[in-house]
Amino acid sequence: VKVVGLLSGTSMDGIDAAVVEIDRVDGALACRLDAFETTPYRKELRADLERVLRDEAGLAALSSLAVALGQAFALAAQGVCGRTKGVQLIGSHGQTVFHEPKPADAARLPSTLQLGEPSAIVELTGITTVADFRVADVAAGGQGAPLVSYVDHLLLSSQNESRVALNIGGIANVTLLPAGGPPDAVRAYDTGPGNILIDIAVRALFPDAPGFDRDGAIAFSGRADASLLAKLLAHPFFAAPVPKTAGREQFGEIFFRDVMTQAVGLEPRDVIATLTALTARTIAAEIPAASALVVAAGGGVHNQALMVALRQELRRRGVPARLALSSEFGVDPDAKEAIAFAVLAYETIHGRTSTLARATGARHPVVAGKIVPGSNFSTLMRSIFG
Amino acid sequence: VKVVGLLSGTSMDGIDAAVVEIDRVDGALACRLDAFETTPYRKELRADLERVLRDEAGLAALSSLAVALGQAFALAAQGVCGRTKGVQLIGSHGQTVFHEPKPADAARLPSTLQLGEPSAIVELTGITTVADFRVADVAAGGQGAPLVSYVDHLLLSSQNESRVALNIGGIANVTLLPAGGPPDAVRAYDTGPGNILIDIAVRALFPDAPGFDRDGAIAFSGRADASLLAKLLAHPFFAAPVPKTAGREQFGEIFFRDVMTQAVGLEPRDVIATLTALTARTIAAEIPAASALVVAAGGGVHNQALMVALRQELRRRGVPARLALSSEFGVDPDAKEAIAFAVLAYETIHGRTSTLARATGARHPVVAGKIVPGSNFSTLMRSIFG
Repeated sequence: VKVVGLLSGTSMDGIDAAVVEIDRVDGALACRLDAFETTPYRKELRADLERVLRDEAGLAALSSLAVALGQAFALAAQGVCGRTKGVQLIGSHGQTVFHEPKPADAARLPSTLQLGEPSAIVELTGITTVADFRVADVAAGGQGAPLVSYVDHLLLSSQNESRVALNIGGIANVTLLPAGGPPDAVRAYDTGPGNILIDIAVRALFPDAPGFDRDGAIAFSGRADASLLAKLLAHPFFAAPVPKTAGREQFGEIFFRDVMTQAVGLEPRDVIATLTALTARTIAAEIPAASALVVAAGGGVHNQALMVALRQELRRRGVPARLALSSEFGVDPDAKEAIAFAVLAYETIHGRTSTLARATGARHPVVAGKIVPGSNFSTLMRSIFG
Repeated sequence: VKVVGLLSGTSMDGIDAAVVEIDRVDGALACRLDAFETTPYRKELRADLERVLRDEAGLAALSSLAVALGQAFALAAQGVCGRTKGVQLIGSHGQTVFHEPKPADAARLPSTLQLGEPSAIVELTGITTVADFRVADVAAGGQGAPLVSYVDHLLLSSQNESRVALNIGGIANVTLLPAGGPPDAVRAYDTGPGNILIDIAVRALFPDAPGFDRDGAIAFSGRADASLLAKLLAHPFFAAPVPKTAGREQFGEIFFRDVMTQAVGLEPRDVIATLTALTARTIAAEIPAASALVVAAGGGVHNQALMVALRQELRRRGVPARLALSSEFGVDPDAKEAIAFAVLAYETIHGRTSTLARATGARHPVVAGKIVPGSNFSTLMRSIFG
């Protein structure tokens, strides 16, 4: 089955769209990437989104933005669909605008909110769409994350060696895949910042750069400040027990403002180098010593300074694991999360659970997502259940 | 198939839950009400809801409220399910907190927002749930309402006489069912206030009453003020072309405040009588002269003053139609809308469109709603598509 996976991550750069050919033979999943494309958000859409994230938008703006994002996701799907025929299913993560699996205020219930109205996607594409993947896990007492771990397990688990799937998106997360382990043995959690802090800092301090530290060039030109690094490592998230999830709430603009008040006198490039070191250090701290292989994906793999620092940190900690890119396993590092949401949508329409309860902390695994029937719904259901 | 229909209307009194046995034989729908129950909202939940409606709640409160409402809907389903076994599907309308199919501000897109997280319903009941029935129609350019008309057509259409299905909920709406007409001939729209204004006024002016004008006793004791009535009838909604939809935005607390500034010197009971006359007059104005039968449902049918006024208005306008209750056709007037959402959910899981595009103003009919798979999803799909 040809499935489109759609995702916009914490960094809110734009929409990743992957066309994936998925087959399941004897319980084993095979998937092949046919096409991949990132569509940046229009400036106005991003501005509206930021207003919602700052909680400055009213109900009307929020309700309208959900539709506007749904249309943007639909256009991203159509863009990538144009390159391929016969797409039968779309899995759309949407854009997280609120995520609170453990409410700070006892008056609130655990909840999570992804915007990107899937009915708007179905209206524009006609294709059955699965969306809202995180809510069911949160309703089952989980953190609603990480969701990609299930797909990591399907695609990367080995009988012979313990592996770690590492994703460096806005936030960085790891999936621990012990050798020969069943789904129940998989652990997964966020390690803290991925690209998010580096990106925010580059945008603030290097307005002429492309909005991120290309190839890690800025970090390479600077030097991490040990005293600032030590202060940042004191953030309670890093000492908190796993499983845990991070977001823009902890490591966004507010955190960066704190960084700057503590970085008085530091060169801008040294700030970038320090944030890169912080990112590498906190990722490496969560890689178990017994790991033979770390399979990295996400935009962060292109940041050479970050990858070099990560290798150094692993060595410093005595972890013998080789750091490889997911492309070695046929998974484009940039497309991995979009591929994962295509796979999750595929599992959902089959009525299969696709969360690892021990990874998310939920009481039980759940069938993730809501199915919005497109014009092909009956045909699709007949092909599965007929 | 046993299906639970769940609904909370514009009046936000609480959750209607109906258990309906649905069968479709040769395209004709048969449905039987097994149980019906209304669960009032807890006071705190209603207060939280009112804060959201006044747009005073932030993102966190909104996101949490969606889950709290979902849990309340689940409890309502469980309450009514307790009386019956073997429920296989839930259709949940949720609670509308924003509805703007024609944005007042050109910067916004048409949208509608119903809260009541269906994943929370599935978590608590295990039963596959369809929710969010209005968004697809709005995405297709429709008003997202009325949705019950499709069910009116299925249950009440006649080959021999033109009928009108009238629902007097918070808002009142009519479905025009011409004799022998195909689905395409059905028209439907809101006529304006149903019980909403009377309820708001009773709560404000008669704090010792039960929150509504029981049997119409207050209206019977007062006299409609012709001058105030004429002023209220000048509201642009009543002259606007059909199809049109009304909501708390037009006929809620703000409208009532306007009423009170114009009602200086009037007895409270005369205010209630005037609002009752306004409601009857604006409903009758939308009943075509050719109608043979008006089949009424909704809480408003218990307001005898309103029903008497409605009969008088029809006579005054020369409409020969008999005013009957839906119970004559086997449909409990209080349960009708909850029954309708059970039927709509049933249609959705079969992949059938269930909107009347000419009634909602959409470009085409849509499959309404999002399917959240419960533990019975695969069994259910096999029974339909196998």
